[in-house]
Parts: sequence; structure tokens; C-alpha cells
Amino acid sequence: MYSPIYLIFILASQVLAIWPAPQSFTNGTSVLWIARGVQVTYNGGNVGWSPSSFDPVDTEQIMGIQSSSSYAAGNSTFSSNSIVQAAISRNLNTLFDQGLVPWKLVGRNQLSQFEPAANSSQTFISSLAITQTQADTLNTYKPLAGDVDESYNLTITTDGKATISAVSSTGVMHGLQTFIQLFYKHSTTAGMYTNLAPVSIIDAPKFAHRGLNMDVARNWFPMENIIRTIDALAMNKFNRLHLHMTDSQSWPMDIPALPDLSKKGAYQTGLSYTPTDIKQIQTYAVERGIEVIIEFDMPGHTTSIGYAYPDLITGFDAKPWATYCAEPPCGSLQLNNTAVYDFLQTLFNDVIPRVQPYSAYFHTGGDEVNSQVYLLDPTVKSNESSVIGPLIQKLVDRNHAQLRSSGLTPIVWEEMLLDWNLTLGSDVLVQSWLSDASVAAITAKGHKALAGNYNFWYLDCGKGQWLDFDNGASFQTYYPFADYCSPTKSWRLVYAYDPLAGVPANQTHLVQGGEVHIWSEQTDPVNLDDMVWPRASAAGEVLWSGRQDASGQNRSQITASPRLAEMRERMVNTGVKVGPVQMVFCTQNNATECSL
Amino acid sequence: MYSPIYLIFILASQVLAIWPAPQSFTNGTSVLWIARGVQVTYNGGNVGWSPSSFDPVDTEQIMGIQSSSSYAAGNSTFSSNSIVQAAISRNLNTLFDQGLVPWKLVGRNQLSQFEPAANSSQTFISSLAITQTQADTLNTYKPLAGDVDESYNLTITTDGKATISAVSSTGVMHGLQTFIQLFYKHSTTAGMYTNLAPVSIIDAPKFAHRGLNMDVARNWFPMENIIRTIDALAMNKFNRLHLHMTDSQSWPMDIPALPDLSKKGAYQTGLSYTPTDIKQIQTYAVERGIEVIIEFDMPGHTTSIGYAYPDLITGFDAKPWATYCAEPPCGSLQLNNTAVYDFLQTLFNDVIPRVQPYSAYFHTGGDEVNSQVYLLDPTVKSNESSVIGPLIQKLVDRNHAQLRSSGLTPIVWEEMLLDWNLTLGSDVLVQSWLSDASVAAITAKGHKALAGNYNFWYLDCGKGQWLDFDNGASFQTYYPFADYCSPTKSWRLVYAYDPLAGVPANQTHLVQGGEVHIWSEQTDPVNLDDMVWPRASAAGEVLWSGRQDASGQNRSQITASPRLAEMRERMVNTGVKVGPVQMVFCTQNNATECSL
Repeated sequence: MYSPIYLIFILASQVLAIWPAPQSFTNGTSVLWIARGVQVTYNGGNVGWSPSSFDPVDTEQIMGIQSSSSYAAGNSTFSSNSIVQAAISRNLNTLFDQGLVPWKLVGRNQLSQFEPAANSSQTFISSLAITQTQADTLNTYKPLAGDVDESYNLTITTDGKATISAVSSTGVMHGLQTFIQLFYKHSTTAGMYTNLAPVSIIDAPKFAHRGLNMDVARNWFPMENIIRTIDALAMNKFNRLHLHMTDSQSWPMDIPALPDLSKKGAYQTGLSYTPTDIKQIQTYAVERGIEVIIEFDMPGHTTSIGYAYPDLITGFDAKPWATYCAEPPCGSLQLNNTAVYDFLQTLFNDVIPRVQPYSAYFHTGGDEVNSQVYLLDPTVKSNESSVIGPLIQKLVDRNHAQLRSSGLTPIVWEEMLLDWNLTLGSDVLVQSWLSDASVAAITAKGHKALAGNYNFWYLDCGKGQWLDFDNGASFQTYYPFADYCSPTKSWRLVYAYDPLAGVPANQTHLVQGGEVHIWSEQTDPVNLDDMVWPRASAAGEVLWSGRQDASGQNRSQITASPRLAEMRERMVNTGVKVGPVQMVFCTQNNATECSL
Repeated sequence: MYSPIYLIFILASQVLAIWPAPQSFTNGTSVLWIARGVQVTYNGGNVGWSPSSFDPVDTEQIMGIQSSSSYAAGNSTFSSNSIVQAAISRNLNTLFDQGLVPWKLVGRNQLSQFEPAANSSQTFISSLAITQTQADTLNTYKPLAGDVDESYNLTITTDGKATISAVSSTGVMHGLQTFIQLFYKHSTTAGMYTNLAPVSIIDAPKFAHRGLNMDVARNWFPMENIIRTIDALAMNKFNRLHLHMTDSQSWPMDIPALPDLSKKGAYQTGLSYTPTDIKQIQTYAVERGIEVIIEFDMPGHTTSIGYAYPDLITGFDAKPWATYCAEPPCGSLQLNNTAVYDFLQTLFNDVIPRVQPYSAYFHTGGDEVNSQVYLLDPTVKSNESSVIGPLIQKLVDRNHAQLRSSGLTPIVWEEMLLDWNLTLGSDVLVQSWLSDASVAAITAKGHKALAGNYNFWYLDCGKGQWLDFDNGASFQTYYPFADYCSPTKSWRLVYAYDPLAGVPANQTHLVQGGEVHIWSEQTDPVNLDDMVWPRASAAGEVLWSGRQDASGQNRSQITASPRLAEMRERMVNTGVKVGPVQMVFCTQNNATECSL
């Protein structure tokens, strides 16, 4: 009566274990155990990894390190040693303290057949030798796309010798994330094992820019949510966290030079990120191979500035809002007002020194600029593109010049280039969200592009409208209240997205990667994890591994599903509230029962 | 530049505070405070409510209670005294320990204008006098729909005298839930206040059966998830928790007379509810005015029986599954097999004594019976309705007779009556899920009905397909992988459902209420709360307050939204991970900014 579930699983298990999929992965079926006493070396020096959270004092225990170098960044100092040491401690603690007993991933009551016998003679991993082949540079910690070689090789021999080799500390960290995914926790107290030895992995990312765009303006996200999200991004080998920091609804970042901005523009005085908070986010991210990119969206999406500086805004809370903005409250920066220019100068003077040590980029926004609102602007009094366009050009030029003078590279939303036809510097990275054709249009103009088509990668879509409708005509018009970008972008749809779709082969090098987006109209700290994960993991694999596999075929949901289900369980064990990938019946039968 | 947000809010605050909406609610704008020393009486006797979790010993402190009565139920004993005493402790502890500072619900930085001055002279609520006007009976704790008068009246005078009067202990509990929703926590340490005195509430439910159907078979839900869900249901004045206990994917309930059922049919041996667990769920629910209804779905949806008893099942894991069942793994009870009858006799003999003390109902399922699978049944060998129908009739008759002989009332899914045209006893409650027309068809046949149209009240819909699709024709066919019941049933759509839609006026008395459904293909303990709430709250108001208000008009999203947002915050404070209703910009502006 029973299907030979066990045999099916053993065969299929060879593709389990690693998310995102490595570029090359060969493995056997031998068992190796790993214990807390495993000797870890970094460039030949023993690493006394800490069995609890990282204690910086232990850095002193590292000896013989060849690639050691440190960089002062603002008043932070990053060194390969401390970053790698902390990553070793962090990952090994995850391995030993948050290990996965894979009962959901093997056939019903088949765990004992999957696991090695608890009382068998155990071969242990004796050493994990980590080699970094080049010294890090300052650009390792605040890279432009492509500045860091993130590749790594990982091997485990059947007699228990493990190695990770990488060019950069970032690559080492990716290798460590992969390493710990090879192990399971035994259902007894027998310890942690892999049943995949020998292992040989050669891995490198497909795209240089792999990001999540997180809207922290429309709902308030206390620090721990951003920190937890950085941890989750690192597990999935993302390397960018784009914080959509400000929007019309709130301004949650303190600007010491303009203290009223957050005091009056945050949802409540005090619900804002202090300079100390921002620095903590930035350094926490850098130490995990992730660059934080801050966006101040403008000239639209700026109503919140008006709570402190009403004279800088046109159409503050103008009604009917659908005429003057995409979403209430309406309000845009006035376009021909010297006070606005003075404000921007002060704003960027304040923030640039706090960004520049940790990031190569600053995002100046530029989506959804509404023309009608400039009829209300006493400095413009027009809704004509021929009038508004040059004024936007001037404002963007001002901002970008100031950023460039401090070595920061600007990012803008696609409308700046494609709708307003601005002349942008060749350095400017243009972020697309509207379509595959947009990505192609950006590269056709010779610009570097970020992909992230909302039909695939907007994680907020499909919840239904966030607006309330009256019982009259609105009810009838909008019933059943689906949102503009319904349906929900399920992980399968996220996974089906190809950032290069529609881009001619001779321009694909301009697509530096992409971002998956979580807009926060209906997301706040309570449901953040469930809204972002596991769907962002699917985007993470597209960005790291590519939409196509080594043979050029689109990756299959059917083989991805069990791996993603396993990744989900690993993430849940670390405290990220990741929604399920499939019901247990499906994960126990390795998706072979639950496919069409 | 600023809108007069404060004034708008003060006017609007009169409709805030209570979810679900009371039938009648008048209030003023005077401030009253409440302190832990408030004197609480129950039928004239002081109640020494415990400032921590309920200590049963304190029951002895109740004196002078008139309606005291206790009922032995199985080996549990329920008494009005202990139930009310526990409810008082529980609700007052929620009030004082998990109070709501409503910063999200008033204008930006306007909390100080909403709150009473912390240093003003405080008038306190001196007494909360609870009166229960009739003695509870055994049926209070295991009611048929309509057995319990759940109404209550609540008053608070401006000089600080509060009263709750109810016919039953259940009504008292509803009154307590309402009472604590009237209070906010001051942003200083000043304490808890209401600004709505005097208050006069007259309240009673529109529908007698207000339920959540929770699928605990497709994913495994440890006990705490069910317990937390009961708490959340009680906050929303639901009175039924329907546990869809068994399905083809797993059998997570121990049956001591048939131990292999859960040992082999659970997702893993041990991941099942023991008799002690079941009793804990039942008693915990009874003590909160909620009746647990257990469903054993049959004759379809029974594959999991086959892990222990393969000879009872036809088409066990038959392929292609789409031919033989609605969802893998296929498998149905054989229909003309005496061993099946013996099994059912043993099964119900085991479970009935464990259900009968706590519930008036047992749900025997009956949805989605597949005809093709009976071609494979050696005791049937036919897919003809004329052959299968009488055999289902015989099986259902057998089950229902056994239930009735123990005083339990059967519930079935609508297909038993409407598709298979079974002759059902007039006692049988028929649960609809397919359409408004189904509800009308059930009542047209003179049967009592439960509503819950999947186009409105299936909370699992809209996540996208749970199946994996290959890269070939399936991908093309199912792209973009929306599920059959997409879009997501947003709270606004849930709220738009009228359980009486399509039912002739002379049959509406047969609609005993309805249930909102959470099927668990893509829901497990990690995202349960976010999947169920706040959307089930919207159903809760429809069931308690009615789709129409006292004037006969459909209730408006625009007035519901701020109340629901407030209820959400209260639920979050108690530990339920309820997703947001709207972004803070909208809740701070009382939805007047975020409507069309």
C-alpha cells in the first residue's frame, strides 16, 4: 500500500539543502558529523569562535591571518578579521543552536531511515579551513555593483576536511551560509550531521545587485524589524537593503540639521531612526555583506516634509487626492522655489556624511510625479510637461551633483528617465518597476538598470485595496476590492520572473540586478515576515542563481519547491516568521505528489 | 496648513471602541478612570478578582450569588460562578496589563489632545456590578443554536457606576469583552481611562451560530495555536470553533480504541491531539463561551485512515489525482464494506463520550465526494450516482443514528443534501460553502443552514496555487498561478457578505449563522494569525451585528475601518499577531483621508 517514499526521497535529496542554488554542486551520500570542537582556521590561523554571540575580544585569538586589513569608515572600523570571525561565530551558533530536524522534509515517519543511526560510529568534520585569497578593500564594504567578487568554493571530503575559499570576506560569508545549510540536527541528542559528503560547490552570483526595497515610511518599523530582515537577507545571499525611507505619509529619519522634519513628520514624535540607529543598521548590514541604500523619494511622495515645512510643499493634502497624487496625502516639493533648494542643500549636507562611509549609493526617488499638483504650486502654476520637466531636471541635477561631490552614486526611479526624459549622468543607476519593456528602454539609453517588475516582484500586491469604499458608487465600482496589482505574487510567480526578459543580449550587462519590493500600506511589524518571506527568497534565488540553470533552462518550481521548503524551516528556526511553502503532505513527499 | 484633525476625531470617536458593533450604543464624552481596586460584584457578591491569571481558589471568595449552579460534564464541572469569576479576572487583567495607548488612532502628535490631562482630578469607576438574571443550565455550556440568550446590557454613569446585566454567563462574558474595549491606557503612568461616559449599551447577537472553521489536518497546529485562536474568537464574540480535524493529508487526533489511526496517520507519530489535549481545548473554549465542534470529514477526504487501515480506503493515493479527488492524496472510505461500518462504530464509540459533554454537535463532513474513485472500490465498482448515492445515504444514516443516540446533532456539508440528495433528519444542520443559492436551496428544503460562501469567507483564497507546475504545458495553463478562489478575501470583502443574501424572508429563520473558514494548505502556526485576523473579525461583526445596521442599511467600510483598526491594536496587545487594517496615516485620520 505504501509508495516507496523513502527511495524517492533519497534520490531527490541530492538537490536539497542549498538556497539559493549554487552554480555547481556535486555531492555524495556519506555521513559526516560536526561538533562544537571543530577546528576553524582563517588563512591558516585558528579562530576561537565563540559559542555564544560574538564577543569582539575574541578577535585577539586570530593569528596568522594574511589578508588582514582594516578601514576606517566614518567612526566605524571594518576589518576582514573581525567580520569573518563574527560570521564564523554567528553561523556556527546557528548550526548548533538552531539546527533543523527535517521531519517535514522526509516521508511520513521516515525520519529514522533518513537519519544516520544515532549509535553508529561517527566520522566528524575535523577542520573547516577558510581561505581568503585577496585582501578586502574599502570598496568591499561599500561597493558599487561588481566591485566585490562574491564567489566562493566549498569542499568537504569524506574523511572530514572542509574548506571554504573565497576572494573576499563577502564570499567567505556566503560560503559559511552555504556550509551550515548542509547540516541537519539529529532527532536524538546525537548531534548535527550531513549526509551529502563528499561535497564540492563552486558558486558565484549571477547578478551583482540583489536587493529588497523595504518601505519604512508608510508604517513604522522599530529597529528590530530591520535588523531581523538584514539577517534574513544574508541567509538568502542578498547584498542590498534599499530603505524607502521617506514618503508622503511619514518622515521617520532624524535629520539633526532639520530636527522638525522627523519631530513633526514622523507618525509620532520619537518614532524615527536616530543617527545612532541608522549607523547601527548600516554597520550591522556591512558586517553581513549587505549594503544599505537610503532613498529620499522626491519631488513627489514628499507631503511629510510639509508637517514641518509647509511652504516647501505644493498641494499639501489636496483634495480630491486622486487628482493630485497616487495615494493620499497629496503633496510634492515646490519646483521653482529657492527655499526648496536651500532645504535640499541642508538635508543632503546632513545625511551624506552619514551615508558615505557605508554605501556607494543614494536613491533620490522620482516615481509617480503628478503634473496636476503643479497647477497649485505658486512657483510653477502649470501642469505642462514642457514647464515641469526642466524644473525637475534642475532639481535632480542639483541633488545628484551634491551626491557626486561626496562620491555617492545616484539611483532614480525609472520615470525620471523614461517619462520625464531627464538627462542623467552615465553613473546613475535607474531602477525599473513598471515592466520588462522599461528595463529594456533603460538599457537602450545606455543606462545601468535595476529590474523588479511589479507584476512579479511587488510583495504587497494581492491583499486587496487598502482604501475604504462608501456604500454607493464606489462600492459597486471597486467590488470585490482587488488592488491594482492583484493577484498576489506567490513565490512561484516571483520565481518565474527573469530580470533580463526583453533585454537584448548586447545590453544585458547593463542590468546590474534587481530588487523585490515590500510597500507597506498593509504591512507593519506584525506581518512583515509573512509578507516578505518566503517570497523574497524566491527572488533571491533568481538574483543569485539566475532564472535559468546551467543548461540554460528556466528553473523548475518542482525542484525548487522542496529546497525552498527546507530553507523556510531553517529561517523559522532562526526566528524569522516565514510563511509555509506547502502543506506538510507535500513537503514530506518532496513535491512529487503536489505538482501538475 | 493643518486640517482640524482633532475635531474630526473627537466627533468620530463616538463610533469607535467596540467591535463587533453593539445593537445600541449611546455615549457621552466625559472622562472616567478605572483602577485595579475597582469593586466588582456578581449578583451582589464581591468578586475578589485575581490580579494575575485566574486562581480557582478565589472562587471561594464569591458570596451571595443567586444564579449559582454547576454541571458535571464528563469529568469536568462547569459552574456559572467559576466561569464568570475567571472571565472577570481575565478581562480586567487584559485591561490593566495589555491596555491600548491609541497613538495610531488619533491625529499625528494629537494624543495629548485626545487624552485627559494626566494631572487632572480623576473620577474613578467605583463599582462594576454584574447581574445574571437567569441560572445557567447544562445547555449553556453545550448549546444548540438559540439555546443561550447571549444578550447583555452595559451602563456606565458619569459618577462612576458601571453595570453589566445578562441572562446567561455567556452574556456576562460578552459584556465584559465590551466593557474593557471602552478603556484606553494613558501615555503617562496615569492609568486607564474612558472618554465615553456616560455609556449605555444594549446588545445581542444577530445570529446564534458564529463560527470559525479551522483546518488542523493539512498542517500541524500545536495546542497553543488553538488556545490562542479561542482567545481571539472570544474577543470577537464568536461562539463556535469548528475544528476540521481530519482530512486526507493527516489524522491528528488520537483515538484510543484505534491507536494506529494517529500513530500512522498523523504527519509524525506524536503530532496528534491526545484525549487530554482535546478536553483542554473543549473546556478552555466552554469557559470562554465557545463550543468546539469536531469534524471527521467522510466519506471523501479520508486517505489518512489508509495509513493505518489500507483495506478501508478506495483509491489510496490514486493517480492521476485530479481524476480521483479534489486534492492529493486521493482516497475515500469504501462504501459497501462491513469493515468500514465496524471501523466507524468503533471510532464514534470512542469519540462520542469525549465530545458529548462539551458540544451539542458533531460534524460528519461530506464535501467533495468524488465519483470516479468508486470505480476503484471493490465493494462498489461504479461511478454512477444511482449506485453511490444510496450507499452514502446508508453510511450517513449509520453515523447520524449513532450520534443521535448520544444526544449529538449532526452537521454535514451542503453536498450531502444538495448534490447527493440524501434524506437527512430534520435535526441535521447543513453547512453551505459554495454559494448564496446553496444557502437558499438548503432552507428551501426546510433544513437549518450555516452560511459561509467561499467567494467571501474563505480566508485561504488568493495566496496563489499551492501546487507546483512543471515548465511545460502546466506552466502555461496555470500562469500566473492564481488559485481557484482568487482574489484574496480582504476584510472589506469579508465584511460585504450577507449570510441571508438570496434567502426568502420566510426562510431566514433557518439560517442559524455561519462560519468563516481557514483551510490550511498554505497556513501553519507561523502565519496562522496573519491569515485569520483581522479578516475573521470582519466576519465576526457580520455574524454578531448583522450585515445591516439598525436602520436596515448595509454597514459601511468607512465607519467600520477605524473601529476594526482599533480592535486590531487591542488584539495585538494580547499576543495575537493580527495584520494591519490600514497604514498609520489612515488610522490616524480616522479613515476620512483614505476612502473613495
